[in-house]
Amino acid sequence: MTSTVEPMTDLHIAQQAQLRPIAEIAERAGIPADAIELYGRYKAKIDVGEIPASGRRGKVVLVTAVSPTPAGEGKSTTTVGLADSLSRAFEQDGSGRKAMIALREPSLGPTLGMKGGATGGGYSQVLPMDEINLHFTGDFHAITSANNALCALIDNHIYQGNALNIDPRRISFKRVLDMNDRALREVVIGLGGPTQGVPRQDGFDITVASEIMAVFCLAKDLQDLKQRIGRITFGFDYDRKPVTVAELGVEGALTLLLKEAVKPNLVQTIAGTPALVHGGPFANIAHGCNSVIATSLARELADVVITEAGFGADLGAEKYMDIKARTADVAPDAVVIVATVRALKMHGGVAKTDLAEPDLAALQAGVGNLQRHIRNIRQFGLDPVVSINKFSSDSVEELDWLLQWCADHQVAAAVADVWGRGGGGDGGDELAAEVLRALQQPHRFDHLYALDLPVKEKIELIAQRIYGADRVEFSSPALKRLAEISSNGWDAFPVCMAKTQYSFSDDASLLGAPEGFTLHVRDLVPKTGAGFIVALTGAVMTMPGLPKTPAALRMDVDATGNAVGLS
Amino acid sequence: MTSTVEPMTDLHIAQQAQLRPIAEIAERAGIPADAIELYGRYKAKIDVGEIPASGRRGKVVLVTAVSPTPAGEGKSTTTVGLADSLSRAFEQDGSGRKAMIALREPSLGPTLGMKGGATGGGYSQVLPMDEINLHFTGDFHAITSANNALCALIDNHIYQGNALNIDPRRISFKRVLDMNDRALREVVIGLGGPTQGVPRQDGFDITVASEIMAVFCLAKDLQDLKQRIGRITFGFDYDRKPVTVAELGVEGALTLLLKEAVKPNLVQTIAGTPALVHGGPFANIAHGCNSVIATSLARELADVVITEAGFGADLGAEKYMDIKARTADVAPDAVVIVATVRALKMHGGVAKTDLAEPDLAALQAGVGNLQRHIRNIRQFGLDPVVSINKFSSDSVEELDWLLQWCADHQVAAAVADVWGRGGGGDGGDELAAEVLRALQQPHRFDHLYALDLPVKEKIELIAQRIYGADRVEFSSPALKRLAEISSNGWDAFPVCMAKTQYSFSDDASLLGAPEGFTLHVRDLVPKTGAGFIVALTGAVMTMPGLPKTPAALRMDVDATGNAVGLS
Repeated sequence: MTSTVEPMTDLHIAQQAQLRPIAEIAERAGIPADAIELYGRYKAKIDVGEIPASGRRGKVVLVTAVSPTPAGEGKSTTTVGLADSLSRAFEQDGSGRKAMIALREPSLGPTLGMKGGATGGGYSQVLPMDEINLHFTGDFHAITSANNALCALIDNHIYQGNALNIDPRRISFKRVLDMNDRALREVVIGLGGPTQGVPRQDGFDITVASEIMAVFCLAKDLQDLKQRIGRITFGFDYDRKPVTVAELGVEGALTLLLKEAVKPNLVQTIAGTPALVHGGPFANIAHGCNSVIATSLARELADVVITEAGFGADLGAEKYMDIKARTADVAPDAVVIVATVRALKMHGGVAKTDLAEPDLAALQAGVGNLQRHIRNIRQFGLDPVVSINKFSSDSVEELDWLLQWCADHQVAAAVADVWGRGGGGDGGDELAAEVLRALQQPHRFDHLYALDLPVKEKIELIAQRIYGADRVEFSSPALKRLAEISSNGWDAFPVCMAKTQYSFSDDASLLGAPEGFTLHVRDLVPKTGAGFIVALTGAVMTMPGLPKTPAALRMDVDATGNAVGLS
Repeated sequence: MTSTVEPMTDLHIAQQAQLRPIAEIAERAGIPADAIELYGRYKAKIDVGEIPASGRRGKVVLVTAVSPTPAGEGKSTTTVGLADSLSRAFEQDGSGRKAMIALREPSLGPTLGMKGGATGGGYSQVLPMDEINLHFTGDFHAITSANNALCALIDNHIYQGNALNIDPRRISFKRVLDMNDRALREVVIGLGGPTQGVPRQDGFDITVASEIMAVFCLAKDLQDLKQRIGRITFGFDYDRKPVTVAELGVEGALTLLLKEAVKPNLVQTIAGTPALVHGGPFANIAHGCNSVIATSLARELADVVITEAGFGADLGAEKYMDIKARTADVAPDAVVIVATVRALKMHGGVAKTDLAEPDLAALQAGVGNLQRHIRNIRQFGLDPVVSINKFSSDSVEELDWLLQWCADHQVAAAVADVWGRGGGGDGGDELAAEVLRALQQPHRFDHLYALDLPVKEKIELIAQRIYGADRVEFSSPALKRLAEISSNGWDAFPVCMAKTQYSFSDDASLLGAPEGFTLHVRDLVPKTGAGFIVALTGAVMTMPGLPKTPAALRMDVDATGNAVGLS
């Protein structure tokens, strides 16, 4: 609740928090001192090989959300607050059980652009928020370096004689920057004459969309990472045969560049709950889940692991179920869908500027978005818990109506004030109780589709069952790619949908629960290292742009070197 | 000496070394525990604000070299070995004096390309060599991010309405990657239509050439860094007026991205001497010296500071004297010129494959290169010490002849075997003795030129007095830039020459001590944040390329996650 006289920003709250030495947090989490490598006072990397097997397999709670709006949903805030509330509950019940967080790392591009940060908010944050939001322990930089080293090595191979017969017009692997830089979306490189490389059309993606990021997050360990990097198809030769990193012979060097990054990062919440923050693909253009290594480690260390999948449940959660949970033993035991009165009112047609006004009719009109996400989670065999993330502008009537709606639809729900009171306080007690109840329920997790369906049918199935589309239209290049996928034997891969996060459809302006629409697949990109096929829909961009007034304009350092303007 | 049965690589030696916890090294260096932030077990960042002023102003020994050749000179090896030898001498003489190293950080691009590493060699290395050579503490990545954030913000400003009236054809500030990637030297960006940015010609430099790297290395502290970033001229408006970062309003955000990077990094040598490794502009395309913050800190902590300037003395040392030593109180008290029999034989006309054969005539023919560097250092008021870095292929006759040549020319000299025996052993004892003797000599340091000379005359003076050129030819664009520099009031800046490191001239094939040549200045780039004017000569490139067989092809991780193939 923002009821103080001077509203506190997330950064103020974070800077006033008392952090404990990370070695103390590690010890409490059961991580031996030999297994941690400090990065400053409050961050550590964990050498997983130094942790003795516990035999524990903690339960997994997946936090997801309604379709995001500019009103803000607070998914990370809820993840952190829920973990703190569970820690508090386990302390109070004397069971000795432990909760642990497994979150994604923030991307610098959006931090400088719109978001300002991605580490939760209010009294439910992971700390040190400024360092996590800026460079953290350098993992994204290592991924960017490995990605761009591969690109430089590919173009150099062509320049130096092209023994692999690579067709410069058919290179699918792009350079990346962890930056929102629209001017790099479409470029021509290699200009300037014969000593400057071979000219070709190219483009840059944001680092979170890199296949190196995907393999980093899906690998079981360093050797698996190396195998996966070797399997990446970066393009095709003049005979239309795929060419892999292993054929170029540089999977060892790229893995070497990632050998420290692949160790999970340990930080703490304001309330002192241990959090593994590691890996960070976006859920709209990539698979949207933190690393398998971190989630698996958290299951070894804690009884309940709270993890998050990016954007709405149509994107992050579907990919968690159909991609991540096929790669590793991390299927969720419970799912939390974060909703807010504000977001549902926007889905019901209210403008962002009018959200402070109570508007039951709009809430009723917008709840269909939540309803479809609930239905979707049930398709995976899980009964979700709805967490209503409280804002100070919410009216009692609106909150009560939403709780009653959930009850009428046989879905567990709780109002959580983890922003204002914190999970370390009593802000998430009811949510924690509902989640613990959900974890007791029997359930039968299942993927949405079988891997032996052709890629085209997988896409149609996701579009119809999850998005509510009537039909899928494949562009002519996409149809060619489908044929190429079949002929290369890649049909058994799952699909990673690239779609706007704002709508179930590929049209960002269609809020709520649209029906009768067509999903447009404009291109497909096989990611044979990650082991999935990316389907690009609508106008979704793999390199974002900066807004008219970037968050960077507010950022600064004060006279003592502290961060200013992150939020 | 590589006389063992199985020759040890630098990486093998480094991996077998017993490292001490970096906290112990810090304590021995007089750094309070509160001032260090650990990065893993063997690296730390130092919070300079937490170190009480000592009043000590350690003497500065600048290590430079003859013009480099593919035969290898061992400048970093000598720097490390000399520091270890001085530590050993101070221990033996019971004086309680301390030696400390202030080195540049290696760049990843050349590590993947040719060099394999840049942390010394043999038994004179800074450790952990694999981590320092790969991502270290992320400083270069932070610099890359800040550089590219500025570029994205500039292009976004133009795209969003261009309130500053920036001329897209006159943007001089380029994007960078810490990569050897020739295909990015000349590119066209912003293609794809009106929503993808504004098309313009552009190019990428390697990170070490970035003006952000230069200001990072020349700033006295974080606030000075912010001021300097604000003063960077990134381009011109349609009225040909310079536009600065401060006008764009993002110097705060860029400084925020550098707030951790700006803290110097502490590591150790194999023999346990503390080393600050911080900042890393190349000396052929940038100013070539480690950070002022680190060098100044080392002077506070130690009695003798050994620092290095990149490439040959014509480049790194000249810039140390005329750029770095004008910015801060770091003028050298002694200078070491590293030479090898092999390199001088190459300067005398021997091919790399024939270097193992004794060849006194070639040595005599090539010594002119050393002679000119000696003369040059004397122009700054300092009498250099020549360190002959011993290789196993050197004959006794060759070494004796070179020592006698030095004696005949009244220049102090010593043969050092710091690669094979280490400075921690007795490999650098004679060199250390010569350096201590040189530090006792009276000297009168002076810059080469006065700042009030016009830029054109400064360039001519460097070309004639240091390089030995007959004349300087300015291209027509360079002449226009000279006029622009004058009209903008930038004539009082020192000059930072961008020139091939292999020759005194701008032609890499002119070895030895060429005379009668013309230096060609093709363009000038004002760096108003760094406070110097870059003069691009000959065909020097600010973005290197990879060789036919990049070092990356040999790199790997072994089954236990250790680095393979760095050397």
